[in-house]
Amino acid sequence: MVEAKLQAVGWKEGCVVLLDQTKLPSEEKYLSFSGHEGVVDSIRRLAVRGAPAIGVAGAYAVALAAREASVLPVAAREGFFTGALKRISEARPTAVNLRWAVERMIGSWTEGGALLDAGMCERLLVEARSIHVEDIAANKKMAELGASLFEKPVGALTYCNTGDLATAGIGTAFGVLHYGYKTGKVTHVFACETRPVMQGMRLTVFELSKNEIPFTLICDNMAAVMMREGKIGAVITGADRVAANGDAANKVGTYTLSILAKHHGIPFYIAAPTSTFDLSIPSGEQIPIEERHDSEILSVLGENRHGFAVPVRNPSFDVTPATLIDAIICEKGIIRRPTTEGVRRVVLGKT
Amino acid sequence: MVEAKLQAVGWKEGCVVLLDQTKLPSEEKYLSFSGHEGVVDSIRRLAVRGAPAIGVAGAYAVALAAREASVLPVAAREGFFTGALKRISEARPTAVNLRWAVERMIGSWTEGGALLDAGMCERLLVEARSIHVEDIAANKKMAELGASLFEKPVGALTYCNTGDLATAGIGTAFGVLHYGYKTGKVTHVFACETRPVMQGMRLTVFELSKNEIPFTLICDNMAAVMMREGKIGAVITGADRVAANGDAANKVGTYTLSILAKHHGIPFYIAAPTSTFDLSIPSGEQIPIEERHDSEILSVLGENRHGFAVPVRNPSFDVTPATLIDAIICEKGIIRRPTTEGVRRVVLGKT
Repeated sequence: MVEAKLQAVGWKEGCVVLLDQTKLPSEEKYLSFSGHEGVVDSIRRLAVRGAPAIGVAGAYAVALAAREASVLPVAAREGFFTGALKRISEARPTAVNLRWAVERMIGSWTEGGALLDAGMCERLLVEARSIHVEDIAANKKMAELGASLFEKPVGALTYCNTGDLATAGIGTAFGVLHYGYKTGKVTHVFACETRPVMQGMRLTVFELSKNEIPFTLICDNMAAVMMREGKIGAVITGADRVAANGDAANKVGTYTLSILAKHHGIPFYIAAPTSTFDLSIPSGEQIPIEERHDSEILSVLGENRHGFAVPVRNPSFDVTPATLIDAIICEKGIIRRPTTEGVRRVVLGKT
Repeated sequence: MVEAKLQAVGWKEGCVVLLDQTKLPSEEKYLSFSGHEGVVDSIRRLAVRGAPAIGVAGAYAVALAAREASVLPVAAREGFFTGALKRISEARPTAVNLRWAVERMIGSWTEGGALLDAGMCERLLVEARSIHVEDIAANKKMAELGASLFEKPVGALTYCNTGDLATAGIGTAFGVLHYGYKTGKVTHVFACETRPVMQGMRLTVFELSKNEIPFTLICDNMAAVMMREGKIGAVITGADRVAANGDAANKVGTYTLSILAKHHGIPFYIAAPTSTFDLSIPSGEQIPIEERHDSEILSVLGENRHGFAVPVRNPSFDVTPATLIDAIICEKGIIRRPTTEGVRRVVLGKT
């Protein structure tokens, strides 16, 4: 069976443990936090990233915040805790998993009586662990479902990082590729470097190598060349938020790949657990797109190489319309040619 | 009038002078060569780049080679010279301007009697200067013709570098944008960074800033976002070789932009002088595509950051089919919806 080789987020000896992804691939350094603020900061600066992974990290951060609150004077506990919930939930705006995880933790808290005592700390840690374990299981289910989409062995192109490092388990799109490779459905992976933060070059290449999956690294602007050369039989990416109609926000550049895939007659798939779906918004137009700092783009030349101000746009995500998506794979099933009805049928189990 | 502010290639005191573009934007360093090998090396390592600029540099390199030959024993002259012609012509494979310039210099040499004496040195220098001056004039003509394509003021997206640094004059696509800005046809330029060598971030941003043209730098994978936001009214790039049917090779990523432009209903233009046309090949399939070293891609992380071998593809160019090009602008006219007949009509002045 396919197993994760790296653990992006975990709980050990009362602390949240994160693999510092800003140091990869040159250094495997782990960070340990006993307070929620360290986790929030890690999410903001991309030490932990990937929609499902930050959902799990956010859930554990809520458990930490409850423990921090529980040792305060009783009158101060709830104010501290609700402030922490807000900071955790808003650490990054686009991936809905963070908000989803915090809301689920709030649900457990209120159902448990909304106290902040030792019992609640235990209750919330159990809930965070459930979110963690369920993500691992969702990964495995998506891997099997996704690989079933490949009718014959293909070279597959992927984007950003969606593996062990982006989730609690074997990954979303990466899990499909990994399982697909082990079962003979995927012959080769083309990994786009993913400017500006290079999650593809730094993280996906690292995971492909660790798992001994044959691959080729390309710059993002070379994907169309590989498609035209006939090397790509499918494109598969993850997502940060899927709207009710199947529009999907993912790392900037994904929308481009969906257009290129359509132009070349190649199927375009997204793998995302139900925790990534936001049925409260009708379409991708309502998904907030995080714009990050100019330095993410300009730092590639080193500091102050221009000697003058360079106006930059840095949207971290873009929205692929459902009309360009051949199928969305979630742990509950495959949504082919996604529509609002199709999404509801699979995600909610009803029409 | 719009004038070039930088000189990528020139002739001064008996030497070829090149602005070392590998040092930009942090340093404006000039290189001076009295022998052709220095120019060949500079072309190979991208110290001078851009199809028209390397054509001019190649022509001057031939003049240098003739002078080097002229001081050798008579019996050794022609062997030295023809060896040099081959090295200059083959310094880079995709841009046809280099071969075009060398062939034109050979024409002048044979017409002049194929000697290699002081008189021939003078003759070849005059011919190289003609190529240089004609490129400057072609740039100006293309700028005027190209700007006439914009029916109303637009934000325009461009790629790689096509300005003062890529030509002898104000540029190909950049010349159109520069002239278009001065005449109110272009309101804003979106410059793609152009991985892996960052000609957009390093060189086009430098030129846009020097010429005080309002611009925004984006990563290549963000072009589709700007199109979807409605900020782009036209896409214009240069070319390294245009085949007889109008298929055009240009910096890798251009093909992607042509597909994205089509998807968003935005016109896609190419500006290229007739020296970039190769009517000896029927279509883009015959254009040799240079694959450059892995380190161009991987060096962005610094040296040996992975600690293991990373398989990489690095095609430096791709081919945009004529069917995705709305017009090619050359100094002899505008080729709308290019076909073999249309290209011949404008480039050769006949059908």
